[in-house]
Order: sequence, then structure tokens, then C-alpha cells
Amino acid sequence: MSLPESLAGTPVAVLGGTGPQGRGLARRWAASGIPVVIGSRSAERAETAAAELAEATGGTVSGADNLGAARTGDIVVVAVPWDGHGDLLKELAPALAGKVVVDCVNPLGFDKQGAYALHVEEGSAAQQAQALLPDSTVVGAFHSVSAVLLDDPDVTSVDTDVLVLGDVREATDLVQALADAIPGVRGVYAGRLRNAHQIEALTANLISINRRYKAHAGVRLTDV
Amino acid sequence: MSLPESLAGTPVAVLGGTGPQGRGLARRWAASGIPVVIGSRSAERAETAAAELAEATGGTVSGADNLGAARTGDIVVVAVPWDGHGDLLKELAPALAGKVVVDCVNPLGFDKQGAYALHVEEGSAAQQAQALLPDSTVVGAFHSVSAVLLDDPDVTSVDTDVLVLGDVREATDLVQALADAIPGVRGVYAGRLRNAHQIEALTANLISINRRYKAHAGVRLTDV
Repeated sequence: MSLPESLAGTPVAVLGGTGPQGRGLARRWAASGIPVVIGSRSAERAETAAAELAEATGGTVSGADNLGAARTGDIVVVAVPWDGHGDLLKELAPALAGKVVVDCVNPLGFDKQGAYALHVEEGSAAQQAQALLPDSTVVGAFHSVSAVLLDDPDVTSVDTDVLVLGDVREATDLVQALADAIPGVRGVYAGRLRNAHQIEALTANLISINRRYKAHAGVRLTDV
Repeated sequence: MSLPESLAGTPVAVLGGTGPQGRGLARRWAASGIPVVIGSRSAERAETAAAELAEATGGTVSGADNLGAARTGDIVVVAVPWDGHGDLLKELAPALAGKVVVDCVNPLGFDKQGAYALHVEEGSAAQQAQALLPDSTVVGAFHSVSAVLLDDPDVTSVDTDVLVLGDVREATDLVQALADAIPGVRGVYAGRLRNAHQIEALTANLISINRRYKAHAGVRLTDV
């Protein structure tokens, strides 16, 4: 697939890019020809992961600490743990001004009965991000794409839709294109940021489904 | 398709069965050979709707007020508007004791930007139902099956999964079978009742999706 003009040559930074979800997304984008910057708390770990992904995909991948990655990316994907999400974004706000910030974070708790959605004061991780980043355009997406499948080079196509949430059409269109760049994946607009909570929380249901059916479940929308 | 033993001869009551969602579900179950009791605030309207559905489907359909329907059904499906949900269940609690109660209700608000999830003190409509019906087994399901498609006799197959939520395996298995009885539909276990909120709220996203894509969107789970 050839990349749409909006993405060709657009560097995408992935904060938390050494974690499973971030690394899996970085791998797929690098393989599709998008220049990727992996961000991590440790620049050294980011550089190591970047070198591995560049080697594995033949793509353009560099590594930096999260601040450096946030500065370099035109689109910045936030794939960090919920714990620390707010603090990191507060710190990076100046570097993220004017950019599209894609929040993939699922505020979940875990106990012996499995996963459950945490209460978030602002409504959702995506709304918290928008509140902390008033000069950025926040889009929620990639909440429940299986990290296992994304990061497995033997999986050639990932069978899922990505639900894209946001209040600015230009930004949600761009993030849909970013989803479409991953083989098998389709980006679908799924409403405004105020309806992001349930898409983040849906990941708890997918964890239950995966446990019951021994699956890596994804979501497809019919009639769309 | 032949009905599983658990459903053959099991009367299913649909409270709010004259509304679009309830009527659509009643139509499909009647057509599949399940005896259906339509419940409504007005016994007369319920009887009229029942006569029409019996004629249209060749199935066994009767009508009663909501209390009468709750008493008659072995499985009782709650498809009433959110406004009044708690009051109705409180009133019907004695009639519903010992039964499986299937809550389909989506607590949503609407404004000019579309639909959004309402805050529910108990967490979700399903959890509110369980709190009000301590002697019943509440299962959440059928939240976002398109009422338009269900109630259209020209639609022979409805292309969606139904996410089934509950804490009692026997009850969720039964409700999955009830979903499977509708041509095209598959019931999938999707977690405990504490994870019902986001599935109810997901209907707000489907409304946004339907508006953007001019669709009657459904949800399918992949790899399950």
C-alpha cells in the first residue's frame, strides 16, 4: 500500500515506544515507510529498540527520551502506562503544542476477577490529555489493538478496526490514515472525545473475552 | 436452526416490548419458535402488538402489562427507556425473583452534538438492575443491536455479535443462546457485570458511527 500524502515523510513519535503496545505500533509504522521516533524514559533503551526495529523492518527508526521524541514527531502517539500519564503530558505540553497527539492509554485496574475500568476525573485518558494539552489536538485511538499481534513479525495482517475519537475532523482523518497504514487494520471514526471513555474501558471486556475464548480478540464494525 | 433445549418452551417476556428495540427482539424470538410475552405499560397496546407479531411470524406471542409479562416470562428482557428503569424494576422485584433478567438499557443523553453516556450511580443500568433485584440474576445484553434491522421482516440476517455480561455462567450461557436464536447474531461472553457500563455507553459511539457513515453499524469480535 502506498502511504497517503498526509503521512509520507511525517515523523511519528511513539512515547512509551519500548512497551509492548508502543513497540508493536512502531514496528508496523516503520514497516509501512513512516519515519518513526521511539520515545522512552531512557534514551538508551529507546535507541536500542529503534536499532532493532530499523534492522527488522528496513524502515527509518530513531530513538530518544520522551521529550526528544515529542519534539521530533509531527504526530505524537502516547502509549505509556496510565500511571504517570498525566505527569508526563504536563511536562511535555510545550513540546506538544500545535501537534496531533494520539492517546492510546487505557485506565484499567486489575484484581483476581480480571480487568476493570478506573474512574478518571476528566472522563477518560483522552480527555485528561486534552485538558493538559490545550494547544494540541488530542485524538483517542489504538486502545485495544493486540500488542502481541502487532509485535509479531510473523503476523502479516492484524484483523481489527481501530476506533478513532476526536473533535477535529482533520486530526481524526489523519489518525484514520495512520491506522490504515497497518496491514489488516481499518481506522473508523467513532465519535467525539467525550465518548472516548467507553472505548478505553472496552479493553477490559476484550481482556475478559481473550481469557474465556483463548483469543487475541479485535473489534470489527459491520455495515461500515 | 433448532432451538437449544434450554430455550425450547421457555417463555421470554420483553418489558417495553412495544418500543422499537423490544419489538424487534420479540419479532425475532417469536419467529425462531420461542414463546414470547410482550409487556408494556398498557396491556391493550401490548395485546395489539402481540397479535400483529403472531400474525407476522406465525409464532406464539401474547401481550400483558409489564407486571403480567414479568410474572409469565421465565427469562425477562428489560427493553424500557432509561428514564423510569429503576422505578419499574423496584416495582417488579417480587415478580422477577428467581428469574434471569436481561437488561438491554442504554443510559444515554442527547444534545446537538449527538449521544453521550449518562453517569449512573450504580455504575451501569445492569448494575442498577442487579442492585434492585437481589433475588434475580441480571445479565446485560442486546445493547446495540439495530432496532431498525431487527424489526424489518425483509432483513433475514442481522450481522452483529451481542456482547453478554454477567457474573453467573449458567445465566450468561442462556442469554448467549437467546442471542444465537436470532439469525445472523452470535452471543459472545464479554465479562462481568462490573464491565457493563462501557458496553451500554458504546451505543453512543455506534450512533456517531451511524451518523458519519449512514449505516446501521454492528460489532463483530475477531479471533473468537
